[in-house]
Amino acid sequence: MRVMGIDPGLGTMGWGIIEASGSRMAHIANGACRTGTKDSLAARLMDLHAQLTDIILRYAPDAAAVEKTFVNRDGAGTLKLGQARGIALLVPAQAGLTVGEYSPNAVKKCVVGVGHADKKQIDHMVRMQLPGADPEGPDAADALAIAICHAVHMRGSNARAVA
Amino acid sequence: MRVMGIDPGLGTMGWGIIEASGSRMAHIANGACRTGTKDSLAARLMDLHAQLTDIILRYAPDAAAVEKTFVNRDGAGTLKLGQARGIALLVPAQAGLTVGEYSPNAVKKCVVGVGHADKKQIDHMVRMQLPGADPEGPDAADALAIAICHAVHMRGSNARAVA
Repeated sequence: MRVMGIDPGLGTMGWGIIEASGSRMAHIANGACRTGTKDSLAARLMDLHAQLTDIILRYAPDAAAVEKTFVNRDGAGTLKLGQARGIALLVPAQAGLTVGEYSPNAVKKCVVGVGHADKKQIDHMVRMQLPGADPEGPDAADALAIAICHAVHMRGSNARAVA
Repeated sequence: MRVMGIDPGLGTMGWGIIEASGSRMAHIANGACRTGTKDSLAARLMDLHAQLTDIILRYAPDAAAVEKTFVNRDGAGTLKLGQARGIALLVPAQAGLTVGEYSPNAVKKCVVGVGHADKKQIDHMVRMQLPGADPEGPDAADALAIAICHAVHMRGSNARAVA
C-alpha cells in the first residue's frame, strides 16, 4: 500500500510517499511544494492545488494523511495555515482517497517514540525507518513521518479488523 | 459585468451573484452551500469545492470576491474557517477569475455606510440596492453585499484607470 503524508503550509508544503507492506516500509519520494510570496493568496492556493494534484497523479498513493495544525499561534498565522491545509485535505479527497489526520505529537510519538522531539530527531528517525530516504528539508521529513504514522495506524486497524 | 461574492464558512458558505453595469446593479442569484457535520473534514471541503464549481459554471461570473475572515475568535474556529476559506479562494481562481478580498468592515461601510452594522441592516440594504433580491439567509445576504462591494470597488478602479 502506498501512503502519502502532507505537512501543510502556504509557503512550503512538505510531501512524502512511502510503500508499506506489513511491517516493511520503503521510501518512494519526497519534496516540497512552494508558492511565491508575491502572488495573490488565491493564486498561491491554486498553485498548491496544481502541484499536489500532479504529485498524486505521478505516484498514485492509496491513502493520505495530513498533519493537524497547531492553533496556539497568532490568529492571522492560523488562518493562513488553515487556508493551505484546506487544499492539503481537498486534493487527496478529490482523488478518491480517505484522508487521515494526526496531531504533530501523535506523529512524533509514532516515529520518535516521544511526543516532543525536534526537527533533527525526526529527520534522523525517518532516515532510519526508510533506508535510502534523503528528505529535501524539514517539511519533507515531517511529511514522511506523517506517512509512516498513517501506515502504522492503518496496519493496526487492519490487524484489529482481521482479529 | 457579473460579480460573485462569497461569505466563507465550513457548515454554510453563502454566495451571491449580481450584474453590474456602470452604477446600475441587478440581482442574479444567491444561496448557501451546506456541508454535513457528520462527514469528514476532507469530504466537506470536497463538497464545498464541487458546489462552488457548479455555481460558477452555471452563472459564469467575470469576477469574484471573498470576505476576509475575523481571526479574533478561538484558534480552532479560525483554523476551521481558514480551511473553508481556502476553498472559497481556490474555486474562482481555478475558473480563471481574479479574486478580491474585503474585510467585513469594508463590506459594511460600502453597503450600509458604516463599518459596524448588524445582519438585519445588511439584509435591508442588500434588498434596497438589488431590487427583487430575496437573500436565502444572512450568509447569502453577506455574499451579495460582498459582490456589491467588489463591483463598486472595481468601478472606482476603472474610473481611475480611464481618467
